[in-house]
Amino acid sequence: MFDFPVQHTAGAARAGAFVTPHGDVPTPAFMPVGTAGAVKTLVMEEVAALGARMVLANTYHLYLRPGHELVRELGGLHRFMRWDGPILTDSGGFQVFSLAAIRDVHDDGVDFRSHIDGSLHKFTPESVMEVQRALGADVIMAFDECLPGGCDRATGEAAGVRTLAWLERCRKRFASLEGEAGLPEQTLFPVLQGNVFDDLRASHARRTLELGDWTGYGIGGLSVGEAKEDMWRTLELLDSELPRERPRYLMGVGYPDDLLEAIARGCDLFDCVAPTRNARHGTAWTSAEGQVNLKAARFRRDAGPIDAGCDCFACARYDRAYLRHLVVAREWLAMRLLSIHNLRFLVRLTEEARRRIGDSSFEAWRRDWLARYRNEGSKQ
Amino acid sequence: MFDFPVQHTAGAARAGAFVTPHGDVPTPAFMPVGTAGAVKTLVMEEVAALGARMVLANTYHLYLRPGHELVRELGGLHRFMRWDGPILTDSGGFQVFSLAAIRDVHDDGVDFRSHIDGSLHKFTPESVMEVQRALGADVIMAFDECLPGGCDRATGEAAGVRTLAWLERCRKRFASLEGEAGLPEQTLFPVLQGNVFDDLRASHARRTLELGDWTGYGIGGLSVGEAKEDMWRTLELLDSELPRERPRYLMGVGYPDDLLEAIARGCDLFDCVAPTRNARHGTAWTSAEGQVNLKAARFRRDAGPIDAGCDCFACARYDRAYLRHLVVAREWLAMRLLSIHNLRFLVRLTEEARRRIGDSSFEAWRRDWLARYRNEGSKQ
Repeated sequence: MFDFPVQHTAGAARAGAFVTPHGDVPTPAFMPVGTAGAVKTLVMEEVAALGARMVLANTYHLYLRPGHELVRELGGLHRFMRWDGPILTDSGGFQVFSLAAIRDVHDDGVDFRSHIDGSLHKFTPESVMEVQRALGADVIMAFDECLPGGCDRATGEAAGVRTLAWLERCRKRFASLEGEAGLPEQTLFPVLQGNVFDDLRASHARRTLELGDWTGYGIGGLSVGEAKEDMWRTLELLDSELPRERPRYLMGVGYPDDLLEAIARGCDLFDCVAPTRNARHGTAWTSAEGQVNLKAARFRRDAGPIDAGCDCFACARYDRAYLRHLVVAREWLAMRLLSIHNLRFLVRLTEEARRRIGDSSFEAWRRDWLARYRNEGSKQ
Repeated sequence: MFDFPVQHTAGAARAGAFVTPHGDVPTPAFMPVGTAGAVKTLVMEEVAALGARMVLANTYHLYLRPGHELVRELGGLHRFMRWDGPILTDSGGFQVFSLAAIRDVHDDGVDFRSHIDGSLHKFTPESVMEVQRALGADVIMAFDECLPGGCDRATGEAAGVRTLAWLERCRKRFASLEGEAGLPEQTLFPVLQGNVFDDLRASHARRTLELGDWTGYGIGGLSVGEAKEDMWRTLELLDSELPRERPRYLMGVGYPDDLLEAIARGCDLFDCVAPTRNARHGTAWTSAEGQVNLKAARFRRDAGPIDAGCDCFACARYDRAYLRHLVVAREWLAMRLLSIHNLRFLVRLTEEARRRIGDSSFEAWRRDWLARYRNEGSKQ
């Protein structure tokens, strides 16, 4: 049920189709984040209307609230959140390391306290498989140890060893659950770690490939505070290590320019809360002016749309003057309209990248696009 | 351009059509509140889709932010908030008395400090006409002195005298502005005060009628903490004082049962923030169970819609279990979906009241509806 035919390439960049039980996802593709089973402020009809084909939900949040067993009982995550397309759930690892109040990491797993009510919980590679099996997303992620950017080599190496041991346990538990009746068809992606140390990255990728012929690969441990050049070099290294006929999911990226740089380096799937989080702060992306904050006084009388080139509902219906008013007055509608715009901005970017990869104009277009976006953005 | 043909009656209840420059409003009608130029969390397409034909916006809020002159400059309130139907703006009086940080009421007007930034402002009957002329709503309201429920007779009488003097000044300023070029066609409603003192209510209504043949009448000073019987008695008294061929707008009502009681006593137009404010607290109205709070644990596994008899988007698409999860997780989408439901609930109620007035089944239906709603509501 899972496949990834690559249709066109342009250098390392690829245009493909990620085939899943809930439909095909043309790649490169950005997945809007529905943390707790909802893309903040939006209904899934809107998410579909802005062109997203696959969404992400957070295992950590859904495990804590409303609970994975309840989601299973109610028909699984697709039915629960009213989304018929493909879903990916993360492993909860990143949230345990970034959100949980207290955590104790050991070889067996992670003990942590809920950021909601302080209650004590434990994630192990096995339990995380069980939780994600109950949620029922199309793609589930292996449990990994996530380190912050800037950690030293020894720490990174130890985390890599642990992540590989956990991957093997995830694989076994995932396989043993296959036999259970009524489980949805799912696939498991490993998460590649190794921080920004080239030898760790290379050996981690090779060891991961030795453990199995995976349907796809999650690239973790990037966009966590490291320098941009470290991220690009790591992606280039992984491009040469990973099989070309499998999708690569760059976790937690991104911002428009990062997305484009990563597409150029062979990444296919992306997720990030930036579009909706920025929306809550009044920030919007534009192709001609870079990133703008609509609170700025210069938008007070601006009768134009957020982005003249954008076809989203917010740009089709509203002007900057009104949106600025909503942002300043802290009206919830502002977050909703800017979320639609920012998500559509990223989806359009992937759509155009895909077209450009198809007609061999990708490299020139990417350079021009980045120069314009960054140059204008820096003038604000 | 303004008219109010009454098509059917059932006792004091009336089914009519309020004719305005931006279209006809079948009555009775509930007007969703777009405080700062947006019905909280919703786009106006959704407000239209749930059957609302006329909306309200707050002069106080729009005067402070973004400013009435800016709204005028941007094409007026209809264009600003993307609503082609009729709009009513209140006078700002109620907000000055309930929201402003400090206020000093005198015969000339009210000095007050903004609840947003503490800046000093002054509303006079004349300035309030100018502000509402700039905003450009179809119906604008006279500036009145609003008292809290439970005030004594002497205070009520003095406020009534002042409100009548202000009404005369509003009328003059409104008329003098008629000559200015480019102003939209608008009409001015007086606000009837007199608290719950029958003689003050009667004399205030008579004095207001002596001042002019108004297009319609605002009924103020109710739903401010007085006993329900006082509200019903006051409405019955006003029904005998006011001309039958003019619409009556009961300000700040209401909750479903209050709406129905007021329709039975001859009121035609209503507004209230309860549908959207309750939504933010997880509260929904249902015809079979009265008012329910979706946080309740009994909805955890409830696969049914909020209200089986409801045709709103939230009821058509979502179950209580998911909505409960969104409410508990404080997802903004909960507020949006419950706002749609609660607003549709009130609009449906006015639609059914209108049908029942037309086919003479209003009184029996009203009694049954209220008994069921209140009885079930009290069981929760």
